[in-house]
Amino acid sequence: MAGPGNVLAVDVGGTKLAAGLVGPDGRLVTSVQVPTKPSEAGRGEELWATLAELLVDLCGGNSPVAVGIGCGGPMRWPEGAVSPLNLPAWRDFPLRARIRDLFDGVPVRLVNDAIAMAIAEHWRGAGVGSRAFLGVVVSTGVGGGLVLDGRVLTGGSGNAGHIGHAVVDPDGPPCGCGGRGCLEAIARGPALVEWALAHGWRGPPGADGRALRAAATAGDPVARAAFERAGSALGVAIATAAHLLELDTVAVGGGLSSAGELLLDPARRTFAAHVRMGFASRCAIVPAVLGVDAGLIGAAALVIRPDQYWAAEGAD
Amino acid sequence: MAGPGNVLAVDVGGTKLAAGLVGPDGRLVTSVQVPTKPSEAGRGEELWATLAELLVDLCGGNSPVAVGIGCGGPMRWPEGAVSPLNLPAWRDFPLRARIRDLFDGVPVRLVNDAIAMAIAEHWRGAGVGSRAFLGVVVSTGVGGGLVLDGRVLTGGSGNAGHIGHAVVDPDGPPCGCGGRGCLEAIARGPALVEWALAHGWRGPPGADGRALRAAATAGDPVARAAFERAGSALGVAIATAAHLLELDTVAVGGGLSSAGELLLDPARRTFAAHVRMGFASRCAIVPAVLGVDAGLIGAAALVIRPDQYWAAEGAD
Repeated sequence: MAGPGNVLAVDVGGTKLAAGLVGPDGRLVTSVQVPTKPSEAGRGEELWATLAELLVDLCGGNSPVAVGIGCGGPMRWPEGAVSPLNLPAWRDFPLRARIRDLFDGVPVRLVNDAIAMAIAEHWRGAGVGSRAFLGVVVSTGVGGGLVLDGRVLTGGSGNAGHIGHAVVDPDGPPCGCGGRGCLEAIARGPALVEWALAHGWRGPPGADGRALRAAATAGDPVARAAFERAGSALGVAIATAAHLLELDTVAVGGGLSSAGELLLDPARRTFAAHVRMGFASRCAIVPAVLGVDAGLIGAAALVIRPDQYWAAEGAD
Repeated sequence: MAGPGNVLAVDVGGTKLAAGLVGPDGRLVTSVQVPTKPSEAGRGEELWATLAELLVDLCGGNSPVAVGIGCGGPMRWPEGAVSPLNLPAWRDFPLRARIRDLFDGVPVRLVNDAIAMAIAEHWRGAGVGSRAFLGVVVSTGVGGGLVLDGRVLTGGSGNAGHIGHAVVDPDGPPCGCGGRGCLEAIARGPALVEWALAHGWRGPPGADGRALRAAATAGDPVARAAFERAGSALGVAIATAAHLLELDTVAVGGGLSSAGELLLDPARRTFAAHVRMGFASRCAIVPAVLGVDAGLIGAAALVIRPDQYWAAEGAD
């Protein structure tokens, strides 16, 4: 039920649409999700109908008091017209405006899903009390979000925190962004799998990050080297960010982070080799703790804790 | 004269002590400076006596309404106990407290000199109107400062903005910080000279960055390559910072930046090769414009525009 004080949270990803009701304290009261079938360009209205039905059902036919949304980028922000890389059905789709219309003009706010994760971890997870916090999502892509001096840094167009395109090896592999040597080009799940296969790993057909993790856990040296390489790249990127922002806490989440120490141990070792001055070396690299709920909790924070977590001026 | 509304600004560097009176609009009314003779450990009180005399004379025997200070790091901040790398006479010297005592307890504020430069350029220079600004100082060391969403980011201990330790080449040369491949290890003036000499440049005895710049301007290929290498490293560091912070403007100052396009052209080319997404690629890399006055103007901003440029809470 959309009880008094609960807000509606929405998390739009490449593989699922999730929605939940979140209490004023950030507790996820209930949530539902549906898979996003492989969606095609031109099928945007079908996808919208699916989401709208999910949201109306969850709210029991009532309007929520407010809605927060996390969505894959890129997007126009704060307008909230979205073009999620992994959802070709939506290109410049006016998601924020559609949800506002669906619920009679209640406040609706939207951010990049990696920023939503960082907000959630800062509010209710591994970053509580952090003065300079970076949340990193390592998954099909690599993204991130920043909360500095108690305020989210969203940037002028909603893309700040994008550590996936920190340059960790200027002569490194080409990146999907058009650049080269970005963290994402090395540490995104598919890049690890590709690297491992090219270096002699014999994964099962259609092997993914999960299979690679299993192989690494079982001791396969190439699979372990793939995580070592990705973790080391992560450590370089965090080293630069820590010097630049005096970070005290970095929380690493996303699907690939379920590999745990396979990824975090080389990240910490590389970080320590590059960061020797106390103001940056004290930064802790820790696992994110909210898991798949982070997207919904962070989205809810946009409307429950706007002083800290909603940065667009004059837009409601 | 310490006219009404003018504040006293102080800039403590490795080669000179400078002080000035700055009007409420950020205009430098008058300034004086004395060289810091090669100072030795244990001679801290002599250096202090020199500075105190300079300040009292400049104020005509009156107390200023407030004092802002930029000083080389490291330091304890916001306490303002300083240990400038290039001033061995001062180690944990209580500069902020001493100046407060000198002027009967008027407000005294102090930041790292690279942050002072960034503040000055944002307030009155190349960064006016920037929403996400990085000022970089390329000199004997490489430092920087950030002004994001209209507020300086000083960090918990006064070291934020330190782009000199962005890791631009994980396997690069060792850095004075104890790490490896930092921007500073490649782009600080002495590193360029050392690299050029090691690659066959025949500089004059005691050759410095100035001599190297002259050689590069005259077409010496090794000297030009030294600037190309440093500028490229600068471009990599700025690429990462632009992605992370959605920077719109980066201003490059400091002694080595007098090389102008010798440094900025490779920085822009490398930046463009690594930054392809619009939210970051629109960032402009420009020369700083305030020159040697930046330190004083930025220091004055700490007390004239504290809402934007003074970040320590509860400390005055």
